[in-house]
Amino acid sequence: VQRTTTYGKRGMALEDEINASNTYYLEHQVAVIHKKPTPINIVKVDYPKRSSAVIREAYFSEASTTDYNGIYRGRYIDFDAKETRNKTAFPLKNFHQHQVEHLRRCVAQGGICFALIKFKVVDRVFLLKASDLFNYWDSAEQSSGRKSIPFTDVEQIGYEVRYKMQPLIPYLDAVDNLIDDNLNSEKFDVKGD
Amino acid sequence: VQRTTTYGKRGMALEDEINASNTYYLEHQVAVIHKKPTPINIVKVDYPKRSSAVIREAYFSEASTTDYNGIYRGRYIDFDAKETRNKTAFPLKNFHQHQVEHLRRCVAQGGICFALIKFKVVDRVFLLKASDLFNYWDSAEQSSGRKSIPFTDVEQIGYEVRYKMQPLIPYLDAVDNLIDDNLNSEKFDVKGD
Ligand SMILES: [Mg+2]
Ligand SMILES: [Mg+2]
Repeated sequence: VQRTTTYGKRGMALEDEINASNTYYLEHQVAVIHKKPTPINIVKVDYPKRSSAVIREAYFSEASTTDYNGIYRGRYIDFDAKETRNKTAFPLKNFHQHQVEHLRRCVAQGGICFALIKFKVVDRVFLLKASDLFNYWDSAEQSSGRKSIPFTDVEQIGYEVRYKMQPLIPYLDAVDNLIDDNLNSEKFDVKGD
Repeated sequence: VQRTTTYGKRGMALEDEINASNTYYLEHQVAVIHKKPTPINIVKVDYPKRSSAVIREAYFSEASTTDYNGIYRGRYIDFDAKETRNKTAFPLKNFHQHQVEHLRRCVAQGGICFALIKFKVVDRVFLLKASDLFNYWDSAEQSSGRKSIPFTDVEQIGYEVRYKMQPLIPYLDAVDNLIDDNLNSEKFDVKGD
């Protein structure tokens, strides 16, 4: 029985769009950002004579990091891509605990960390800073906290990324704004040491 | 027929040592550096009722990047781990063309890029700067160039990483030296913009 939806497939379309954009950025020497391969636990491999090894039994395993990282303008970039069909809010259950922890660690090291969130019904994409995500995540962990980020909040605090042709999702323009805002607020010092 | 050696397995032991060291660095908030999952082309997946998806046919595919990246002291780190049983030289065939190209792209973006090379017979590990690797790689591409880096050269231009307990391979000490040398030679400017 083939499931129609799995957790990993939910973000597929947005990921394809981001992958195409990353290829554009790579080929134009703008940035080097790649999607990490899906982590797999391999149980059984056949080695047929005169042909390549075939994996015969393996399972999807949980990633310990986000999906994307790389370098842009000398800076470490780390993010995850998330889609929702929800019209009024982004449900926080789209994030795993370990992804949020990974983003916290990277922020602590001075990385540029965020989520790219697509509201599928309206086809709008926003960059949400990791520090903003942490605020909602932490308040959701208190029993009273809401378990989602209202769409109107994302509209207000996020950086909208508008589709264009080359690249399809020009999210590094939003990263430029994020870096500028960080520098202006003097909260950010890439040298760190 | 099970092959006794495959290309991917050659670096196994060193990778395990590096992974252990990365766990130490992660837990002590020193750096966030992970090994990327092995890239796999999945052909067939079964979805049994009431249990997890099982990959029934998949193939190892070629990585388009190096094995390791992450962030340390606010800087983007990118490297690969290589082992050789050769006593007198490091054969350049241990690198794939696309790995060298990936390192070149990351260097152009201002990343800290290198190889960790283990000479198994003498159990010595060296950090070799990407820029030094490029010199040997480029001269090897000329018909007259040698196809390996003499051990004595690695000893002289590399940064030796001596095994200790915590972490097992303290390669970030060598990265500190590399960063200092870069700063001293004024060839390196992490801000970049
Ligand atoms: Mg994702
Ligand atoms: Mg390797």
